[in-house]
Amino acid sequence: MLEDKNPQRTSLSELGEFGLINHITKHIKNQHKCTVRGVGDDAAVLAPSKMQTLITTDLLVEGIHFDLSYMPLKHLGYKSVMVNLSDVYAMNGETKQITVSIAVSNRFSLEAIEELYAGIQLACETYKVDLIGGDTTSSTKGILISVTAIGKAEKDTVVFRDGAKETDLIVVTGDLGAAYLGLQVLEREKQVFQVNPNNQPDLNDYTYLIERQLKPEARRDIPKLLKELKVTPSAMIDISDGLSSELMHICSQSKVGCKIYEDKIPLDPQVISACEEFDLDSTMVALSGGEDYELLFTISIDDYNKMKANPHFTVIGHITEERQGMKLITKANQELELKAQGWNALKE
Amino acid sequence: MLEDKNPQRTSLSELGEFGLINHITKHIKNQHKCTVRGVGDDAAVLAPSKMQTLITTDLLVEGIHFDLSYMPLKHLGYKSVMVNLSDVYAMNGETKQITVSIAVSNRFSLEAIEELYAGIQLACETYKVDLIGGDTTSSTKGILISVTAIGKAEKDTVVFRDGAKETDLIVVTGDLGAAYLGLQVLEREKQVFQVNPNNQPDLNDYTYLIERQLKPEARRDIPKLLKELKVTPSAMIDISDGLSSELMHICSQSKVGCKIYEDKIPLDPQVISACEEFDLDSTMVALSGGEDYELLFTISIDDYNKMKANPHFTVIGHITEERQGMKLITKANQELELKAQGWNALKE
Repeated sequence: MLEDKNPQRTSLSELGEFGLINHITKHIKNQHKCTVRGVGDDAAVLAPSKMQTLITTDLLVEGIHFDLSYMPLKHLGYKSVMVNLSDVYAMNGETKQITVSIAVSNRFSLEAIEELYAGIQLACETYKVDLIGGDTTSSTKGILISVTAIGKAEKDTVVFRDGAKETDLIVVTGDLGAAYLGLQVLEREKQVFQVNPNNQPDLNDYTYLIERQLKPEARRDIPKLLKELKVTPSAMIDISDGLSSELMHICSQSKVGCKIYEDKIPLDPQVISACEEFDLDSTMVALSGGEDYELLFTISIDDYNKMKANPHFTVIGHITEERQGMKLITKANQELELKAQGWNALKE
Repeated sequence: MLEDKNPQRTSLSELGEFGLINHITKHIKNQHKCTVRGVGDDAAVLAPSKMQTLITTDLLVEGIHFDLSYMPLKHLGYKSVMVNLSDVYAMNGETKQITVSIAVSNRFSLEAIEELYAGIQLACETYKVDLIGGDTTSSTKGILISVTAIGKAEKDTVVFRDGAKETDLIVVTGDLGAAYLGLQVLEREKQVFQVNPNNQPDLNDYTYLIERQLKPEARRDIPKLLKELKVTPSAMIDISDGLSSELMHICSQSKVGCKIYEDKIPLDPQVISACEEFDLDSTMVALSGGEDYELLFTISIDDYNKMKANPHFTVIGHITEERQGMKLITKANQELELKAQGWNALKE
């Protein structure tokens, strides 16, 4: 339904690898002084810094992580950057540089790759990131994107997953579950389209859900906000695989348990109505849906007053002793064992 | 001919993504103090440094960059690290960390991935590099490896491609063309094997060639040696796509021409005899073969005395004015235009 109707098609083999690299990189302007040398040498060069360096990398594979029948290439480029920036923000850091490598089959034209890089470029401009390197090659099937983000964090305020302590409060940013429901809507429309290609979908009721799936935004604002509020979380992680999976990482690495409250989990009204329509449990969707790219963190109870009135944050529970396990307190006041059923890229 | 005869086969989907990551990373021990935090958080954390940071990344795709019918997975792991370290050494730097991401189809067992990581691990130990992160996911076809190397270089001695000046001498390390011929030997044996699987190949005459193809070593020793000799090249690049392609990069980025001498190009005796056997021109093989992972650099003529007696280095020519172009002086004293016919990953 979102196919490229553009009749122009320049084959990548005409251009060759260096031609493609030149074509993609000729408009790149580095924004940061600390980018001493970007694209164009054996390696990029970054200036020395008194801050710590953060390195994170993610691989997105067609047919595994995305479906181009409803994911426009420009959005894919944008999202592939977000996924990585989100990991840097989850360390309470900021990103200044990324590298992007792609492998593409000859199914893709130069114009398609330009669309992909337009999304990458837009992400770089919006999030103030320099594209400093990468690799371009062919694949025998489909498209694959490998992004590495290079960030900075202060030694005193970098946040790991393993610092959560008993009685700490558990906080999430934004709301959860929308990206997963966006995917369900798009999958349904794809099936409708396959049966009746002339059907015009009305997606007005799902705009937020679809945007969260196709154009997620990483929470660059949160490390800044935490600094303003003078709050350093004791542990932090980004929510890419679903709330319960991420909570499990914090709890197992911090050697603690947790208790979260079903009625505290922040949900957008579109999530609630779409869950009714799809006959899904909204709590399950929030716990296991994934791809929200919100941040999950723990803070000392002493910091509660600094953030309780802030609309970006929702306290959903607290950290307990390890032997108490991971618990969900339902709206009916039942205590359930939390299970990580997040997305698993290697499941068949 | 080098197939895995091991009957044990654990499917990756049994383990899941986190299980696989735990399995692969449990033995990792970081060697460097500057690796503050490696695998296991949203991002790896590196200590501040007074040196510049180098970042380089390469993507290796099955069916494009390697053929598993003669490339053992352990060698593939080792080579995928070398390819990236080589880029850091080409900046006159050293590498302390790498990240490794892989996408694998369900054709691969856990035991196969262990082999791959055994090669990566061996490279890390031999070259004193910490494996600090990565991503593991499935692919719809084949295996793909994306490595990013993080290095350090002194601001005063980092070497770019664009600093070559007229009259500078052109130097290469080691010898050229062997890796390409190793590939020809392996391709021939594969064809023989397909016709007659019982044929036992005798590869004694090609050991050096095959080793250069299957287990290349990046020139970690060269930046150290240059430092000892107190020589800072004016330009440097690693030879991954063939001598003429790399020379072209130095010349175009430095806005100079060059003149190299056919009789100076360093060739191993096995290269010369294999070229006769395959009816190939050894100069063409050295110029366009690629995958040698030697270093090509230019030095001021004043530094000539410091390195002329060193067996690691061969002076093959000198830099000229840009308008003189790129020239090869043949053994018969003919002047030919140098053309870059290096390997191109996007050619059909």
